[in-house]
Amino acid sequence: MPQPAQTYQPAQTSQPLPPVSVLGLGMMGTALATALLKAGHPLTVWNRSPSKTGPLVAQGALPADTPADAVAASPLVIVCFTTNDNVGETLATVDFTGKTLVNLTNGTPAQARALSTWAKKQGAAYIDGGIMAVPQMIATPAAYVLYSGDEQAYETHRPTLAALGGTKWTGTDPGRAALHDLALLTGMYGMLMGVAQAFALIRTENIPATEFADPLRNWLTAMLSGVVPGVAEAVDSGQHLTDVSSLAINQAAFPNFMDTFRDQGISSDLFAPMQKLLDRAVEEGHGADGLSRLVELLKLTN
Amino acid sequence: MPQPAQTYQPAQTSQPLPPVSVLGLGMMGTALATALLKAGHPLTVWNRSPSKTGPLVAQGALPADTPADAVAASPLVIVCFTTNDNVGETLATVDFTGKTLVNLTNGTPAQARALSTWAKKQGAAYIDGGIMAVPQMIATPAAYVLYSGDEQAYETHRPTLAALGGTKWTGTDPGRAALHDLALLTGMYGMLMGVAQAFALIRTENIPATEFADPLRNWLTAMLSGVVPGVAEAVDSGQHLTDVSSLAINQAAFPNFMDTFRDQGISSDLFAPMQKLLDRAVEEGHGADGLSRLVELLKLTN
Ligand SMILES: NC(=O)c1ccc[n+]([C@@H]2O[C@H](COP(=O)([O-])OP(=O)(O)OC[C@H]3O[C@@H](n4cnc5c(N)ncnc54)[C@H](OP(=O)(O)O)[C@@H]3O)[C@@H](O)[C@H]2O)c1
Ligand SMILES: NC(=O)c1ccc[n+]([C@@H]2O[C@H](COP(=O)([O-])OP(=O)(O)OC[C@H]3O[C@@H](n4cnc5c(N)ncnc54)[C@H](OP(=O)(O)O)[C@@H]3O)[C@@H](O)[C@H]2O)c1
Repeated sequence: MPQPAQTYQPAQTSQPLPPVSVLGLGMMGTALATALLKAGHPLTVWNRSPSKTGPLVAQGALPADTPADAVAASPLVIVCFTTNDNVGETLATVDFTGKTLVNLTNGTPAQARALSTWAKKQGAAYIDGGIMAVPQMIATPAAYVLYSGDEQAYETHRPTLAALGGTKWTGTDPGRAALHDLALLTGMYGMLMGVAQAFALIRTENIPATEFADPLRNWLTAMLSGVVPGVAEAVDSGQHLTDVSSLAINQAAFPNFMDTFRDQGISSDLFAPMQKLLDRAVEEGHGADGLSRLVELLKLTN
Repeated sequence: MPQPAQTYQPAQTSQPLPPVSVLGLGMMGTALATALLKAGHPLTVWNRSPSKTGPLVAQGALPADTPADAVAASPLVIVCFTTNDNVGETLATVDFTGKTLVNLTNGTPAQARALSTWAKKQGAAYIDGGIMAVPQMIATPAAYVLYSGDEQAYETHRPTLAALGGTKWTGTDPGRAALHDLALLTGMYGMLMGVAQAFALIRTENIPATEFADPLRNWLTAMLSGVVPGVAEAVDSGQHLTDVSSLAINQAAFPNFMDTFRDQGISSDLFAPMQKLLDRAVEEGHGADGLSRLVELLKLTN
């Protein structure tokens, strides 16, 4: 999915690269701004707390006094705040005539659609984006960004956006990138719950977490390669019967986890809903099915 | 962690390989029995529902009429039932004098310790084990089994056990293998929650699950390599401050997930406790820390 490596290092040309403005210099915004600077783009930066512009200005960025000044400075404006509410509040009355606004703030599909409508009224071409990377991965081949919304503006600015990481177009519905982004991050939050709980459990026996890290990572990586394609095929085909690991056997084992969390003195809160879901699955007659059946059971029927 | 490949294919010798009995021929027990047969061990099998012995008998295994007959047939007895309650019930009065019992049924550390005490009274050397594989992985280099309990018996039977996959000794406390096993599987259940929820979300937009599988797997694999070692180091050092992704920013983004689950008509039950935990983390002043802090917060303090 990430673009070929050469897209991260724009070819040297005699043409100066287009200017970019970045608003929001938190951990992620600073990484985005730094990547654009390193790629050679003239850069204007704005942050609510002005002190955070310092290191970027030292590297050649221009500080803007106001969000409006930052927007005025460049045809491409990238925003990365905490929430989309911050985007609405900060930019409500700013004139975006002829500008492209790329919003890389985490948000919902509904928020992206509303911001797209608002941005058009302000004169902007709107692109919503979801960053599939932590700040340290930005501008490496492992990073990519999902985009949706104004396709023409996307094609125009794609060479610039490629400085941040791979570019992946998801469609003209401005909410599409957010949906993909949230789905991928949903997978990650589940994984984080599992990883946090696993380390909490192993630490109760004073086993160093660093000693457990490789076995945990290797095990989860191995499971990912089997489970994800297997679940996907079962979901698409609707064939959930398994010869790998049944919901009944998972339900039978689950009290072992809950009892052990209790015996070892750690919370079982993160895992209680999974137990309820497995119980329900078996109760509703799906005991011989595999874990892919849970995808169906998560649909709300009313 | 898995053993080098040659341990899976015992060297050809003129000595006949030691006989083994396998009790419990579910998906996993059948895979274990098949691996031992293929490795060349004389094999006796027993299953509560006798019909499941058929395919193994066709491959050369001897069926036993009772659990006691199966135990009497071999010095090494491997059990793989649904729960440890089944182990206790099925083998309660069986004479194990001079036998080694390897129990590969999923269970808790407390159950393993109790079974070890019981097994010694019945004359057995007891080894508890946790299988880090699905049945289809048994006897491949990707599979391994965690063992704990009677170390001398383990050393004696290790060449035989190696036919199932890599062998990993965790200690003489019979509960140790179960603790490691449950910790690794805890990570997996978290991952499964994330994967199931992610597929449920993407399916609401009628995106084929198989189209989403590679991006999901690649993203989770990339996150695993960063997150697991990072969390482990933070947990061991107690230094939870982050420059990657703060609990505050994760807490701020979390309503986007919950709102989108609701908007798209899928349950948010699996993720509600994570939101509560993030809220609590920030409330208690850990907003600038990374996700590793959650490991501490899962400890029950009273
Ligand atoms: N960190 C990651 O790994 C990661 C990965 C993918 C996506 N993201 C997303 O990227 C966005 C930023 O994350 P981050 O890690 O950079 O967070 P962060 O370090 O906490 O930075 C938040 C930024 O938002 C600004 N901000 C907050 N409230 C504001 C308001 N009312 N008006 C104007 N600016 C405001 C902050 O300004 P001040 O400096 O003045 O507080 C700061 O620049 C979030 O939506 C996050 O979900 C982050
Ligand atoms: N499948 C996996 O991916 C996997 C991975 C690692 C560990 N495990 C563990 O391996 C064990 C077996 O799992 P599985 O997938 O093989 O499950 P399974 O296919 O459902 O088989 C369960 C086995 O237990 C037997 N059994 C159940 N209740 C019994 C009783 N009261 N007395 C005697 N035998 C009884 C069953 O006999 P009948 O045929 O008569 O019902 C069957 O042989 C579980 O502890 C599981 O957690 C499984």
